[in-house]
Amino acid sequence: MKNAVVLVSGGMDSAVVLAIAREQGFAVHALSVRYGQRHTSELEAADRVATALGAVAHKTVNVDLRSIGGSALTDDIDVPLDHVAGADEIPVTYVPARNTIMLSVALGWAEVLGAADIFCGVNAVDYSGYPDCRPAFIEAFERLANLATKAGVEGAGIRVHAPLQHMSKAAIAREGVRLGVDFGQTVSCYKADADGRACGHCDACRLRAEGFAAAGIADPTRYMR
Amino acid sequence: MKNAVVLVSGGMDSAVVLAIAREQGFAVHALSVRYGQRHTSELEAADRVATALGAVAHKTVNVDLRSIGGSALTDDIDVPLDHVAGADEIPVTYVPARNTIMLSVALGWAEVLGAADIFCGVNAVDYSGYPDCRPAFIEAFERLANLATKAGVEGAGIRVHAPLQHMSKAAIAREGVRLGVDFGQTVSCYKADADGRACGHCDACRLRAEGFAAAGIADPTRYMR
Repeated sequence: MKNAVVLVSGGMDSAVVLAIAREQGFAVHALSVRYGQRHTSELEAADRVATALGAVAHKTVNVDLRSIGGSALTDDIDVPLDHVAGADEIPVTYVPARNTIMLSVALGWAEVLGAADIFCGVNAVDYSGYPDCRPAFIEAFERLANLATKAGVEGAGIRVHAPLQHMSKAAIAREGVRLGVDFGQTVSCYKADADGRACGHCDACRLRAEGFAAAGIADPTRYMR
Repeated sequence: MKNAVVLVSGGMDSAVVLAIAREQGFAVHALSVRYGQRHTSELEAADRVATALGAVAHKTVNVDLRSIGGSALTDDIDVPLDHVAGADEIPVTYVPARNTIMLSVALGWAEVLGAADIFCGVNAVDYSGYPDCRPAFIEAFERLANLATKAGVEGAGIRVHAPLQHMSKAAIAREGVRLGVDFGQTVSCYKADADGRACGHCDACRLRAEGFAAAGIADPTRYMR
């Protein structure tokens, strides 16, 4: 089995990506990044998801993005409730350069493992607002990865897979069900409590709930009230 | 004054880069990354250098690369002594994806500051062995940065400056002297002791000493014996 590094946040999208990588026959090395997010219960969810879906390893790497600030997810900035960001608006929950940094750490681990494949869960819904979720970003990162590393220089090549890129939340939910993902283990909420229960009102909660509804799947999310 | 983020390691190259950015009129925000290097005295040197050369701020961000392993600089792998790596050889002191990760963190801070300029100290001597020091890598990172961020999306654009890229160590030493850099404050050694004194035998020490010799500049390095 070939090794792959899969970025796993604890949310529903990356859980589906992990299951896709397993279905494609990779030995999955799940990677989470503790970047100073206020909602750390997602990291516990990442660990549950990695174990349940058969990752051969799971690492959580500390990257202290709180020290550079600039995001509602790491700073004392309020996460907006009952508001979904519009297509032209970059939400306050955007973490500066987060995906660049997380993919860079994944690239480092891939290089150590001799893995040529990196998977991440960026998707169509996210890239309306976050610049580092767009297909052109993923392509540029793959190009960079092949210039940055031994594997790229010596010829094997690195591929960055973003299999959810063009899928709606509903399609992602259906794909997860097909692959046996237990979405009850995942935490998407920006304001989840210590037990991983969701607020039901932030962007992430609303997009997720709408996805389950559109897919006709019962929402397994544990809400606070 | 426009803000710039300058990656500062504590070594001689990035000290010269900081001085160049200051000469170009930037308000320098110096950034160091504590990535699990065994030789932490270079981080103390980074702080001295940033202060001495007039940076308006200096941050050290923790990124725990030790947890992914794969390098003599973070693991219990011996740093080779009295051996300079050849042009086709990637040395064991290479840290997987280090420059990608450090530039990514710099990009995040630049975005928070509204800075369009990032400086780093990669140079011709390094790129003989480290894939992430080559000019093509820097160009690819700049392209990525412009796709990854608000600044890139909204039009201002990010520039990644690597002013030492095509300079020899001797030319870097001369440029530093011209700009008033006190190289006695810098630590390049891979095995420096807690006081920042150098071993005199690792690749970094040898390249540095040869640079001073070729430039006809007295070597201000503090050695262990």
